[in-house]
Amino acid sequence: MAVRVGVIGAGWIGQDHIRRLTETVTGAQVTAVTDIDAARAGEAAARVGARVPADGGELIAADDVDAVLVTSWGPTHAEHVLNAIAAGKPVFCEKPLATTAEDCLKIVEAEMAHGRRLVQVGFMRRYDTGYRQLKQVIDSGRIGEPLIVHCAHRNPTVPQSYTSDMAALDTAVHEIDVLRWLLDDEIISTQVITPRATSKRFEHLKDPQIMLFETAKGVRIDLEVFVNCQYGYDIQCETVGEEGLVRLPDPAAVGVRTAARHSTEVLTDWVGRFRDAFDTEFREWITALTAGDEPTGPSAWDGYAATVVSNATVAARQSGRVIGTDMKPRPGFYATRGLV
Amino acid sequence: MAVRVGVIGAGWIGQDHIRRLTETVTGAQVTAVTDIDAARAGEAAARVGARVPADGGELIAADDVDAVLVTSWGPTHAEHVLNAIAAGKPVFCEKPLATTAEDCLKIVEAEMAHGRRLVQVGFMRRYDTGYRQLKQVIDSGRIGEPLIVHCAHRNPTVPQSYTSDMAALDTAVHEIDVLRWLLDDEIISTQVITPRATSKRFEHLKDPQIMLFETAKGVRIDLEVFVNCQYGYDIQCETVGEEGLVRLPDPAAVGVRTAARHSTEVLTDWVGRFRDAFDTEFREWITALTAGDEPTGPSAWDGYAATVVSNATVAARQSGRVIGTDMKPRPGFYATRGLV
Amino acid sequence: MAVRVGVIGAGWIGQDHIRRLTETVTGAQVTAVTDIDAARAGEAAARVGARVPADGGELIAADDVDAVLVTSWGPTHAEHVLNAIAAGKPVFCEKPLATTAEDCLKIVEAEMAHGRRLVQVGFMRRYDTGYRQLKQVIDSGRIGEPLIVHCAHRNPTVPQSYTSDMAALDTAVHEIDVLRWLLDDEIISTQVITPRATSKRFEHLKDPQIMLFETAKGVRIDLEVFVNCQYGYDIQCETVGEEGLVRLPDPAAVGVRTAARHSTEVLTDWVGRFRDAFDTEFREWITALTAGDEPTGPSAWDGYAATVVSNATVAARQSGRVIGTDMKPRPGFYATRGLV
Amino acid sequence: MAVRVGVIGAGWIGQDHIRRLTETVTGAQVTAVTDIDAARAGEAAARVGARVPADGGELIAADDVDAVLVTSWGPTHAEHVLNAIAAGKPVFCEKPLATTAEDCLKIVEAEMAHGRRLVQVGFMRRYDTGYRQLKQVIDSGRIGEPLIVHCAHRNPTVPQSYTSDMAALDTAVHEIDVLRWLLDDEIISTQVITPRATSKRFEHLKDPQIMLFETAKGVRIDLEVFVNCQYGYDIQCETVGEEGLVRLPDPAAVGVRTAARHSTEVLTDWVGRFRDAFDTEFREWITALTAGDEPTGPSAWDGYAATVVSNATVAARQSGRVIGTDMKPRPGFYATRGLV
Repeated sequence: MAVRVGVIGAGWIGQDHIRRLTETVTGAQVTAVTDIDAARAGEAAARVGARVPADGGELIAADDVDAVLVTSWGPTHAEHVLNAIAAGKPVFCEKPLATTAEDCLKIVEAEMAHGRRLVQVGFMRRYDTGYRQLKQVIDSGRIGEPLIVHCAHRNPTVPQSYTSDMAALDTAVHEIDVLRWLLDDEIISTQVITPRATSKRFEHLKDPQIMLFETAKGVRIDLEVFVNCQYGYDIQCETVGEEGLVRLPDPAAVGVRTAARHSTEVLTDWVGRFRDAFDTEFREWITALTAGDEPTGPSAWDGYAATVVSNATVAARQSGRVIGTDMKPRPGFYATRGLV
Repeated sequence: MAVRVGVIGAGWIGQDHIRRLTETVTGAQVTAVTDIDAARAGEAAARVGARVPADGGELIAADDVDAVLVTSWGPTHAEHVLNAIAAGKPVFCEKPLATTAEDCLKIVEAEMAHGRRLVQVGFMRRYDTGYRQLKQVIDSGRIGEPLIVHCAHRNPTVPQSYTSDMAALDTAVHEIDVLRWLLDDEIISTQVITPRATSKRFEHLKDPQIMLFETAKGVRIDLEVFVNCQYGYDIQCETVGEEGLVRLPDPAAVGVRTAARHSTEVLTDWVGRFRDAFDTEFREWITALTAGDEPTGPSAWDGYAATVVSNATVAARQSGRVIGTDMKPRPGFYATRGLV
Repeated sequence: MAVRVGVIGAGWIGQDHIRRLTETVTGAQVTAVTDIDAARAGEAAARVGARVPADGGELIAADDVDAVLVTSWGPTHAEHVLNAIAAGKPVFCEKPLATTAEDCLKIVEAEMAHGRRLVQVGFMRRYDTGYRQLKQVIDSGRIGEPLIVHCAHRNPTVPQSYTSDMAALDTAVHEIDVLRWLLDDEIISTQVITPRATSKRFEHLKDPQIMLFETAKGVRIDLEVFVNCQYGYDIQCETVGEEGLVRLPDPAAVGVRTAARHSTEVLTDWVGRFRDAFDTEFREWITALTAGDEPTGPSAWDGYAATVVSNATVAARQSGRVIGTDMKPRPGFYATRGLV
Repeated sequence: MAVRVGVIGAGWIGQDHIRRLTETVTGAQVTAVTDIDAARAGEAAARVGARVPADGGELIAADDVDAVLVTSWGPTHAEHVLNAIAAGKPVFCEKPLATTAEDCLKIVEAEMAHGRRLVQVGFMRRYDTGYRQLKQVIDSGRIGEPLIVHCAHRNPTVPQSYTSDMAALDTAVHEIDVLRWLLDDEIISTQVITPRATSKRFEHLKDPQIMLFETAKGVRIDLEVFVNCQYGYDIQCETVGEEGLVRLPDPAAVGVRTAARHSTEVLTDWVGRFRDAFDTEFREWITALTAGDEPTGPSAWDGYAATVVSNATVAARQSGRVIGTDMKPRPGFYATRGLV
């Protein structure tokens, strides 16, 4: 029988996941949709023959909802996730798990009290083929112990509503999660350097930013976040170890030679870059649920760590200082969970 | 409602497609499986809760079979496909459509008499992202009119049962189909050159072979078929036009620097190379059937052309001569069909 | 003391070599220059303080000429080279050594009678870093015995004076020499296939052409010669062996990402592509002469072989047939000479 | 007439330059050699038929010395360069120009008093083809105003005598010079981050180090210096601008496919990486001198700036602080000098 999923939040990303669960991933069925905008929920639900419960609480409690997908506005995440845990139902929450460390810890505690993982956080890069190869090489020991990671996260442009804080909270947060996972290590301090700003930005925005992270094992990470780079959507990651290095590939693209140039296309949005990763993320989630297993993806603890580090990075930029992340020790409960 | 598929042939590829239709592609359900080996059919059917009709004929006629998938031994394809057409049911036939030009033409005529496309042939390369980009660039006119295509089709090794004829019939046939589609052109002659044979082959086998094709528009194609190349599974395709060229990319893979080398992995089997293409192939087939549309993939005519050219290539190698393919003119019925 | 060089032929290539021997290569001095156009010889000589003997014969005989460089019109090469041998002076002859196999053999015989190598032919690709790496890999056995070579020789455009025969005689002749050297093998047959011609050529010209060579050991070579490819000057060479392959690199060039493209420059002329090879060629030649050694570069025998194969390739295209090169057996004298 | 060069310092690099001026660069002749080790000077001199003056002072004053090459121990550079200026002779000084900012300024002042450039400092990267292409792209405006530069400078190993300070003084100093030139900008602050050290180093050494530079225009530079990276000698430089980026190419190398890997060689020493740059550096220097022109390469001012920034970088590492370079304003004399 298909896993019956209730979706809280029918905005762009919610609709995309509803489509994914319906058309691309086998073994799932979207049975309920809610949104703060009831009309939007109604339309999204109608397209897949789902019901429209009155609100998230009702959706979570519903008998025809086996698992919950939270894609609503960030500040509402904690409440829905806590409700799902209370109901003993698996819940997939788009990042952030919660906007504050305190709320993330409440979720962590609730889940530990429940005694079994229910929560998965939507960091899809762990499902990208390139990142998985990267991790495989690092874990194999071929490059020796990791010492340095160089990253870049570039978008062609962002709208006026994008703020300097979002560079950490919405953009770098993907690297923060994937680097913790790649290195199996924790970020203990963060710092932000602001180069001369590009003229091709809205006035209020610090862009580009260079973020510097330090891990518990002493690995140093530099991450260029440049969200108005104009030329494309470009994700780079190079891990330097004691005996070699490994670098994320560019997406495969045909090579064209014309007019004295050899050229390949650079993608211009993240949808194309991570489409397969999103598909794999949900496919593995549904597979685990179908088998009655705990989810294997990013855990509530990973959600907590990402929120702590990205919030600290905002503080680092605002203060111009190196900021310690002051993270709690990881409970044994999460020691072997969320390692996919 | 899911499209109910009956599968004739439960060998390796049949089982893989049953898994694909069950686990990977939404909107399909395998309801019936037959095989010349009844036990094998029974096991494959049991895994997905399908029935085991007595034979292909019974399967095709069954009420719970909306569409037929033929993955049995090549020489049996024509009979099953003709039966499916007679039953008015869509049929997906793994290559070859039939082993002789005559049988292919019977299928073509039966389908035209039916008045609507029912047949799709399993040439999955048209669904590969790289080939689709290649076609997009060619069709865009960026490289001008195509003049030459250089191809290579390399496998690490083949078993003793692989014969010199199979280099054309089983291996080059993929290029034969995809090149006709890429160039929107017909192959009119074929020739085979046999370099010194590799010592790493079974004695009876001519390996490598270089096949030379000529198209109706005068494009010349050279195709290296080397099925014991040892180092990997490697597919190359470069189209040279009047103003530039376009080249198939290698699959994306992390770059590793260790011990004075920068290296990337080369795949070693076609399963990894074309997995996504197979998925897309079946996804698009099921999508068309669900919508009540004709299939959009390789047509019966494409199946005929591939059989004619690959058979002529066998004759060319055996005779040492340039062989004209002597292909029939394409009926108007197929003029705009099978162009995906 | 510097090697005193007399230059016969002060056209474009002659002038370039005079500049090279004067400004780039140490240990050489151009002391005499002649040309059928006396004014041109005078200007070239004046720039470097050289004399202008009445003709090639006088130049070769002159006391202030230690070594001769022949860069005159091809049909005059044989006479000058034979004169130099008669005078016992080292002679560097731009390709072709002679335009007929007969004249080449006269030179070979004269040199053998002299008992010591005097002649070097100007095939500069053997001095290209990429080709040298290619040979090193082949000779190392890393890819096993060579079986197939795929080559392309592309120029952006050629002037109206360029004829269909020149595709073999002037263009492919570089590959003919470098492949014999790379493979340490002899070409025994040649064939030409003519794809649909590009519209971007002068009407009289067959362009592109595909040349197919067979070696004594059974290696098969396909060479695309395309002299109006528009997009650049592009030299490709891939050697496929029993256990792997090795491919000539593209010249290093900065990668640029702008406007959704990653691009690198493609060269547009052979001067930039092979400048370093020319320099090394003359540097090694002067070094050998300074040390009193025989020249180590392409020998008179290599010049003979190149003329035989390129002439046979012209015949192959004109006749549409496979043409055997019917080459003489290589004399022991040349067995270990010209192997750099 | 050849430029007669006197060489002060006959160690490894001195001997290499003597060979270069004798065998590779035309128009120069080494006429005198001195060294603190007289025997070593004698041997080096004998190989090229040069004299051995008693010391640097005598060499600089000698009538048969037109130009001076200083390749002695760093702390002696200032004295020799000042002497050469006093004698009005062109002087090429290997880096550093002087070990202190004060001494560098003395040289700058002496040269300005002389009224004409005499000094060139041996930063050879400005002569590397890749860096020159990089500068060409930046200067062309294709990537817009530069904002960030990512660099790496990796050596396979260093001997025990290599100290943590040398990472800035001997290694990073090359990037410090070439970045000032690439960006036409001045470095105003420097900071060093020390990741976990590699286990493959001598105990006393901080390795790797990440250096962070800020320029007057606000460009931010991160430079990984990793001198025990094991895998090769690897120089990376990527400049990110407002509209795109440009990246230094890896040296061209044949691609080899064997055993499921595509690989290219990574160099293991700087000699191979920058041989051509050294040749070009000296060729252009001799060309300028021959023409009676001022040298066009890195100036005394560039030598001053490099010393200031590299010394500040040592202080930054030792203190753990961001250190301002506190550089003097560039005199008008140097405004348009040293821009090659």
